[in-house]
Amino acid sequence: MTSQMPAAQSPWVRVADAPSRIGQIIEVRGWLTHRRSSGKVQFLMLRDGSGVIQCVAGINDLTPAEWENCALLTQESAVVVRGALRADARSPGGVELGLSALRVVSVAEAYPISPKEHGVDFLMDHRHLWLRSARQQSILRIRAEVIAAFRDFMDGEGFVLVDAPVFTPNACEGTTTLFETSYFDEKAYLTQSGQLYEEAAAMAFGRVYCFGPAFRAEKSKTRRHLIEFWMMEPEWAFATLEDVIGLEERLLVTTVARVLDRRAADLSVLERNVSKLENVKAPFPRIHYTEAVERIRAAGLPFEWGNDLGSPDETALSSQFDRPVFVTNYPAAVKAFYMESDPSDARLSLSCDCLAPEGYGEIIGGGQRMESLERLTRRIEEHGLPQQAFEWYKDLRRFGSVPHAGFGIGVERTLAWIAGLDHVRESIPFPRMLNRLHP
Amino acid sequence: MTSQMPAAQSPWVRVADAPSRIGQIIEVRGWLTHRRSSGKVQFLMLRDGSGVIQCVAGINDLTPAEWENCALLTQESAVVVRGALRADARSPGGVELGLSALRVVSVAEAYPISPKEHGVDFLMDHRHLWLRSARQQSILRIRAEVIAAFRDFMDGEGFVLVDAPVFTPNACEGTTTLFETSYFDEKAYLTQSGQLYEEAAAMAFGRVYCFGPAFRAEKSKTRRHLIEFWMMEPEWAFATLEDVIGLEERLLVTTVARVLDRRAADLSVLERNVSKLENVKAPFPRIHYTEAVERIRAAGLPFEWGNDLGSPDETALSSQFDRPVFVTNYPAAVKAFYMESDPSDARLSLSCDCLAPEGYGEIIGGGQRMESLERLTRRIEEHGLPQQAFEWYKDLRRFGSVPHAGFGIGVERTLAWIAGLDHVRESIPFPRMLNRLHP
Repeated sequence: MTSQMPAAQSPWVRVADAPSRIGQIIEVRGWLTHRRSSGKVQFLMLRDGSGVIQCVAGINDLTPAEWENCALLTQESAVVVRGALRADARSPGGVELGLSALRVVSVAEAYPISPKEHGVDFLMDHRHLWLRSARQQSILRIRAEVIAAFRDFMDGEGFVLVDAPVFTPNACEGTTTLFETSYFDEKAYLTQSGQLYEEAAAMAFGRVYCFGPAFRAEKSKTRRHLIEFWMMEPEWAFATLEDVIGLEERLLVTTVARVLDRRAADLSVLERNVSKLENVKAPFPRIHYTEAVERIRAAGLPFEWGNDLGSPDETALSSQFDRPVFVTNYPAAVKAFYMESDPSDARLSLSCDCLAPEGYGEIIGGGQRMESLERLTRRIEEHGLPQQAFEWYKDLRRFGSVPHAGFGIGVERTLAWIAGLDHVRESIPFPRMLNRLHP
Repeated sequence: MTSQMPAAQSPWVRVADAPSRIGQIIEVRGWLTHRRSSGKVQFLMLRDGSGVIQCVAGINDLTPAEWENCALLTQESAVVVRGALRADARSPGGVELGLSALRVVSVAEAYPISPKEHGVDFLMDHRHLWLRSARQQSILRIRAEVIAAFRDFMDGEGFVLVDAPVFTPNACEGTTTLFETSYFDEKAYLTQSGQLYEEAAAMAFGRVYCFGPAFRAEKSKTRRHLIEFWMMEPEWAFATLEDVIGLEERLLVTTVARVLDRRAADLSVLERNVSKLENVKAPFPRIHYTEAVERIRAAGLPFEWGNDLGSPDETALSSQFDRPVFVTNYPAAVKAFYMESDPSDARLSLSCDCLAPEGYGEIIGGGQRMESLERLTRRIEEHGLPQQAFEWYKDLRRFGSVPHAGFGIGVERTLAWIAGLDHVRESIPFPRMLNRLHP
């Protein structure tokens, strides 16, 4: 079946780089997506992971053996081809390869994923193959762009990457949503947030962020929940709630603009309405919690002042805006123990969530952290948490305490919004959900 | 104690950016590292996470209250100061701040870490504070630079970031070094490598990498072992062992050059012998396993052909070179089941490890992956592994199998070498080791 490529060497060119090679003899290595033949001419569509290219061979362009091999090529068969690259406005990418040699690397068995509709379970069971589809590739290319945009933005703002640990020693806020494992003679828990560690790092570096996986053993089966997800968490010393809201705004504006600029083709594959993304410009609206309550009620949803916003509330609220919206000053009772009190209303906290528009809901949670050792100690007690477990964290208030603030932004929820996905399950290469640990 | 800053606003400038502000009135926010006073003049050394700056105040430059507050400032106390920035060649950073206002944010309790020697356990117990020391900051800044260099290099080579999952369903290669957790009604294991997933992704994108934490429940207590460590794993379709060795070489040359260029001050803090790093230029020596065995024996170590290299062997070998060295074609029996056979000697594999010089040992492991479904199936059987667990992985050989290769590079070991550390425990912000899960 396989035949050696003739000795003459041509450069291996990726499809994405082909437009700069017009007029040259090049080699392409890829997989067949479609093939048609007129009897005298073969049209092979190849994907190589960087793009798709049309290859054309007349019966006299190839050896008889090569020509016969074409007929054996099934979807996803792997080939190495050589040919002259020419401009062709009708072809994808604006180029076409006129083949002069074709080597079959492997002939694929009957490929299980076809253009017809498949159930989600079937596709998820075949996630290792489903990744090859144009839609999944576009989503994951945008994912990589979003992550690079996040990192480049933070580095540009002078924040230092300081990785937080995954294994944590305490199950301070209850074990119901924590994954536990034996850690030699101890118990360890998988991180849900690196924030406390980033606060320590912020007192060393001033501006830091971590970026890694986090884990929540929630039995939620919604379009917004993953068991394993990626999160970036900046923390900023000598900064206030106001400072981090500005930072979040710049982060989102920069990220969306970069995706619009660099991943336009992928957004097009996803049929994303980019005019919605083009709205994402500063300033974003800022709504006090109390105003949010009024807006949720006005939208016809029952809501009691003092409660946390649920998904339907966030959807109702974020649907009212054409860009992300900040909801500030949540009741202290619905936020974590470390959130700073609102000096203008003791019931409230210096917190802020950012809700993505088009009903996507919360993508960022953040706020100013408690500065005073005395207030923090009292808060830990009020929450029924063990002081001992937080002595190291309280050290940050004993030795050089300063106002500081930070936030966590979820990669998958942000991507789901930017890419316009119905469900977060497509926003990560190998999703882990309730009942989904494979492949 | 605290007093409001006078209303006149000056820009908040980070110490690292101060040299561009000479002649201006600026505000600096930071922590006291040293203070001395002549009775009429206060010298305050402040760190703000971006650098250290000397501040000077004469008794008439401050209000009487501000002047008195200076005397209360202990190490790590937090202040906001304002003053005129002037050039001063004798000061760190070449600038000095002539204070005109000083606000005390917090006075620190007696700081537990002093310049005197502390035991490792004490420092590790205080890792949240130890991060503030100049040495730890320099190490972790180099860490962030290494990680950014890795990512930028891979992106530049056309590799797409495709995150591998942390939760994996099978304990195929034995559970002795795996962390296990309950995953609803199943068992899940924490990843030791994303490679199998990256192979799937490589067949979609051609060139991919993952970058995340990995976990090994090894009871090893050596200077090279962490329980939780970070790893980057590129995988490349249509590539051979030779291709990835070239890629690894370019990656290391680029990374070391970038650290030398951008983190020279940090290398200097660590008193790193940079001439050793300046040697890191292509080509790196390449040694066949059999030659490695001969060299290890010649160095006086007992070694039987067919065994894997242990740490002492790697140290002996890597000490013989002034730059990283590739050891190729290890016996198949000491490598994982998925490693491609060496066509020139069936006992060997198309594998390659990269050993860092100066005795640091293995930092990269990689090779070409098994291409044929038949051989892979047989190999899984020979290793006593369950075929069923690998059906999805075998799909990659059923549908468009191609030669492919990849590697994994450990962040902490690479950093330990570049930064010249005695022990990997300082190479990660919050190390997790045997008996070390806190803070």
